[in-house]
Amino acid sequence: MPGEPRRGSGGWKVALVIRGELRLTAGKAAVQAAHAAVLLYERARTRAPGALEEWSRGGQRKIALLAPTLAEMEALERAARGRGIATVWVEDAGFTEVAPGTRTCLGLGPARDAELDPITGTLELL
Amino acid sequence: MPGEPRRGSGGWKVALVIRGELRLTAGKAAVQAAHAAVLLYERARTRAPGALEEWSRGGQRKIALLAPTLAEMEALERAARGRGIATVWVEDAGFTEVAPGTRTCLGLGPARDAELDPITGTLELL
Repeated sequence: MPGEPRRGSGGWKVALVIRGELRLTAGKAAVQAAHAAVLLYERARTRAPGALEEWSRGGQRKIALLAPTLAEMEALERAARGRGIATVWVEDAGFTEVAPGTRTCLGLGPARDAELDPITGTLELL
Repeated sequence: MPGEPRRGSGGWKVALVIRGELRLTAGKAAVQAAHAAVLLYERARTRAPGALEEWSRGGQRKIALLAPTLAEMEALERAARGRGIATVWVEDAGFTEVAPGTRTCLGLGPARDAELDPITGTLELL
């Protein structure tokens, strides 16, 4: 199951963008990314079944990225919405590392590489 | 959205167990955990809708754990199956950090804390 971006106009993927300034542990980041992936899956199932099918056909590729601040994630969300890409926020209940309701992760897609890469291309890999 | 285990007989969660010996980067581990979460979600939707509903009602709690070796993950899978807990393996396509087909992550659940905790209780948090 592919986990890395395969550049090309035909591929579909989901981007899971972790909020860097929170300095989450690897485990916490993995849980937030998993939350975002399931939320995007649920959303696509009812609202964009064609995108879900394309994404599934390619092995449900996912990429985990790091955005430095919430402000940069909000700008990314606006850019994604402007292109018609689905977005979800993950908020943490705050049992451990962060305060309740803190936005920890932004999920984007499933979307074509050709649409997603231009807006996420400057972000570091997690 | 809760990401940590809340002990108690009434809660439901999913465990995402990363294979420690592969020494994956945080980003790679996050992607494998996200793959496992979506696979468990898909499986529960068709084969265990009651469990999916209970898990969703509690905020789809997830926990990321680390198992040292594949052998320990296989033992964990057998223990889970013995208790009737759903299991999924994530295999990586191997574009970057690992060889193609390598098992990177074991997903377990959704299951009650009371059923899952006894078999995962000795594992470290990721």
